Amino acid sequence: MSKEYIEKVRVFALGGVGEIGKNMYVVEVDEDILVVDAGLMFPDDDMLGVDIVIPDVSYLVENAERVQGIFLTHGHEDHIGGLSYVLKKINVPVYGTKLTLGLVEEKLKEAGIFRHSTLHLIDANSRLTIGSTSVSFFRTNHSIPDSVGICFETSQGAVVHTGDFKFDQTPVDGKHADIGKMAAIGERGVLCLLSDSTNAERPGTTKSEIEVGQGIAEVFEKTEGRIIVTTFASNVHRIQQVIQASIRANRKLVVVGKSMVRVITIATKLGYIDAPKDLFIDIDEIGKYRDEQLAILTTGSQGEPMSALTRMAKGAHRQITITEEDTVIIAASAIPGNEKSVSAIIDKLYRIGAEVVYGQAKVHASGHGSQEELMLMLNLMKPKYFVPIHGEFRMQHAHRELALKTGMRAENIFLVDKGEVVEFTNGQARKTGKVPSGNVLIDGLGVGDVGNIVLRDRRLLSKDGILVVVVTLNKKTGEFVSGPNIISRGFVYVRESEKLLEDANELVGVILKKCVSENVNEWSSLKSNVREGLSRFLFEKTKRRPMILPIIMEV
Amino acid sequence: MSKEYIEKVRVFALGGVGEIGKNMYVVEVDEDILVVDAGLMFPDDDMLGVDIVIPDVSYLVENAERVQGIFLTHGHEDHIGGLSYVLKKINVPVYGTKLTLGLVEEKLKEAGIFRHSTLHLIDANSRLTIGSTSVSFFRTNHSIPDSVGICFETSQGAVVHTGDFKFDQTPVDGKHADIGKMAAIGERGVLCLLSDSTNAERPGTTKSEIEVGQGIAEVFEKTEGRIIVTTFASNVHRIQQVIQASIRANRKLVVVGKSMVRVITIATKLGYIDAPKDLFIDIDEIGKYRDEQLAILTTGSQGEPMSALTRMAKGAHRQITITEEDTVIIAASAIPGNEKSVSAIIDKLYRIGAEVVYGQAKVHASGHGSQEELMLMLNLMKPKYFVPIHGEFRMQHAHRELALKTGMRAENIFLVDKGEVVEFTNGQARKTGKVPSGNVLIDGLGVGDVGNIVLRDRRLLSKDGILVVVVTLNKKTGEFVSGPNIISRGFVYVRESEKLLEDANELVGVILKKCVSENVNEWSSLKSNVREGLSRFLFEKTKRRPMILPIIMEV
Repeated sequence: MSKEYIEKVRVFALGGVGEIGKNMYVVEVDEDILVVDAGLMFPDDDMLGVDIVIPDVSYLVENAERVQGIFLTHGHEDHIGGLSYVLKKINVPVYGTKLTLGLVEEKLKEAGIFRHSTLHLIDANSRLTIGSTSVSFFRTNHSIPDSVGICFETSQGAVVHTGDFKFDQTPVDGKHADIGKMAAIGERGVLCLLSDSTNAERPGTTKSEIEVGQGIAEVFEKTEGRIIVTTFASNVHRIQQVIQASIRANRKLVVVGKSMVRVITIATKLGYIDAPKDLFIDIDEIGKYRDEQLAILTTGSQGEPMSALTRMAKGAHRQITITEEDTVIIAASAIPGNEKSVSAIIDKLYRIGAEVVYGQAKVHASGHGSQEELMLMLNLMKPKYFVPIHGEFRMQHAHRELALKTGMRAENIFLVDKGEVVEFTNGQARKTGKVPSGNVLIDGLGVGDVGNIVLRDRRLLSKDGILVVVVTLNKKTGEFVSGPNIISRGFVYVRESEKLLEDANELVGVILKKCVSENVNEWSSLKSNVREGLSRFLFEKTKRRPMILPIIMEV
Repeated sequence: MSKEYIEKVRVFALGGVGEIGKNMYVVEVDEDILVVDAGLMFPDDDMLGVDIVIPDVSYLVENAERVQGIFLTHGHEDHIGGLSYVLKKINVPVYGTKLTLGLVEEKLKEAGIFRHSTLHLIDANSRLTIGSTSVSFFRTNHSIPDSVGICFETSQGAVVHTGDFKFDQTPVDGKHADIGKMAAIGERGVLCLLSDSTNAERPGTTKSEIEVGQGIAEVFEKTEGRIIVTTFASNVHRIQQVIQASIRANRKLVVVGKSMVRVITIATKLGYIDAPKDLFIDIDEIGKYRDEQLAILTTGSQGEPMSALTRMAKGAHRQITITEEDTVIIAASAIPGNEKSVSAIIDKLYRIGAEVVYGQAKVHASGHGSQEELMLMLNLMKPKYFVPIHGEFRMQHAHRELALKTGMRAENIFLVDKGEVVEFTNGQARKTGKVPSGNVLIDGLGVGDVGNIVLRDRRLLSKDGILVVVVTLNKKTGEFVSGPNIISRGFVYVRESEKLLEDANELVGVILKKCVSENVNEWSSLKSNVREGLSRFLFEKTKRRPMILPIIMEV
């Protein structure tokens, strides 16, 4: 290196700020691009028909030869769910802990892109050197085992990414967060901290996961009928606690739902779940046991219409139907946007007459630290600069308030939007522009082929439906060979609106005849005349604006 | 009356149980039908394009000559919003307090069905005799003034409907709930209580509205820039408190948003809002004042995309644009289903750099009583039978648990669904079947013309769009005169999917030729062959299932 060499560190988010989900962060040390996580997000209500959303990674694709690796903090979908799409575009090494890679492996196999050489196993004590950067890890507590924070050591100090975390003083697996290590990192000097903002609005300290196990065990103790428990499939600690409760209550456990079966299989194989072999029984064996000998662990905690729980409640599940004899434990909270569907499944269960146990207070704990824990992290790391991540903008904002409370100066805190670059030289930070970032929508097999125009059309169609107007004209005489015919979908009940549609039909005829007589012959003009005339007529009559698709054919 | 005469009282809900909204209850005393409230509900996410939902009142229409009147508990949309639709079908007297009727009058005028003779003014001290039933009222506290509960006295005892209520020990207008009167009703004997379950899951006591005023006043005191307050237009008490805060802080008040202006106009005229005339200034005058001399009261507390607040935040409002100098108070909570849009507006405001004050703890209080208040009502009324109303089923269920706590017996509590009749004879109750009930969807001018088929189509269209396949066949030869042409909307980006659509086109040609050569001539068969073949092809290629609309014309 020449004397003039000045290290440049750049930090930005490709996803996960200003939103909940699709977490993806980039730490660039000179030419080396180090990526943290590659998550997915579930679509907003207005992304009609979209299955999932992943970050726009065009920056990584354009600079593919500089990308040194993707470092995973833990195995939740909003941190690993975009990986199979990203790896199709750039072939780079992926680093993760055992459980995280176990879940990733499954995903890559499903996507048909699994290569052993891609995945690199690390643990909280690993230390890697990537170019000039030393990368180390520290254990955190979260609602999935094997979660880590990541420390990238640069010559200006460390850039630390917490991942998702809480400080659980009574962790289910006995593995405490590496507080000593965090303090040591802080002592050595942290240039910039990126820390989880999810619960920055919540005062106090988040409840320990072990209290949830106690809540569940209590229900098991006092219940005589069959018990059905639903939770997030990835919450391995909670699943372990359901296992313990089943053992203590002498109940056999039936696992239902694809993702629940998959996670339990992987976590058991890798040693994260500990259960006697004869605890689990096959769903087809439940007839052999009495209700008080059975517990069922199932997916569907978000009230998803096609989930096992919803189907059990509707009597649409092949083997299990929930009755008034059953007790259902909903050991989960509603993810934002799912409030109505969670509410609906609780209602449905009560209507059946089942006992329902739900709610934060009893059988759920967040995996994210509350205000006291976030301030503890800030105090341990004592960062020079702070970038709140993981959260809607208002949560990042609330996290900034906490940092101010701990004594940080406002000018050292950066609230960033996706793609906004914070650049560090000589230990000084400033915002320096933006890299491309955004949403890539995935619908079926299509990645990115659903964009604004398609969504706009779906929105229009969803609101008032469509009218297709078909007419065949004789090219020479301008006479109607057939039609006009109007076909409507999603607009009105045809049976009850015959008169309206007849009038509309007539109107189209009048418009077209007028056009022909005035020698308006261009198709586009004919069509726009029909569209506008018909739209005005229908709005006047119904105050609705269906999409109108005029199809004019000539023979 | 002959000796054999046995009075029959029937109680049921046409809306408002198993749901939040469209409250409408019926108390039938022998032949007399007495209706409580006629509300609307906002559509669920899956009711695409629907504007509002009202109860199915076919039972009332069929028995129109027996309906003696509609009694209104208060002026919220979920209690009066369906009135103009109901009164179009049955012409019956409407009873309500001054503010309630003020709001109703406006609605009926808008709908063009206002008649002075329809509206009958009552107050909390009124007593009416309708047939054999004596009807009286008692004052309650709620988030709109002039709220009452209703007592229908029958020979078997009183049927009491609480309306929406809380017990506010420090009401803004100094008008306490009529606890003494409630106790007296209880002493005389209540056959059946119908009571508000909205907050039955919430422990403790609901905060007084006056604390919200204090929270707002504090923000006014310490803020130097312009203040923008948003709340529910109908919350007259809160509006009054914003007025007080403005007066104390020497700020002029600008009112923005149609519903806000309307409610303030009516409430001021009727004496429910008290403000010096020179407090309000016109929106066009704001240029004459400095920021610290201004407060703006606006609609948009639910983050509605077209509301004044959202437009101010987006820079799409003609006179007011929110800047980083402003402080915005969101004095409301998110109505279930609106969580995401409320969250989005808070984010938007923070991004602008504005100060934002929001959240239950500071600047909002519920209008519904919590568990302690609900038990107080039960203890005052000491009903023989209890029907929890106003709420999702799980709230009714939680309300039942409270009643059990107060000592009621389970068999005396009825959890009812819409239309389920509880019948009382000789002071004994039992469920006796159902009357017709359900949702009537209103879309534009159409009342009830959007049903399952239309909604199903809208759902299909919203998910994967539509493909219209048009072909003109020669009747005699079976040859294609024009087409097949495929037009798609909301399916894929046409530009990026040319090959797919070309292949689809070709496939349709092959299918049709095969049909013709096999003499499949019926249109319905031709169409279903095209639909199935194309659907299979597209699903294989894209994993999407757009609606396919084959249009085959013959010349």
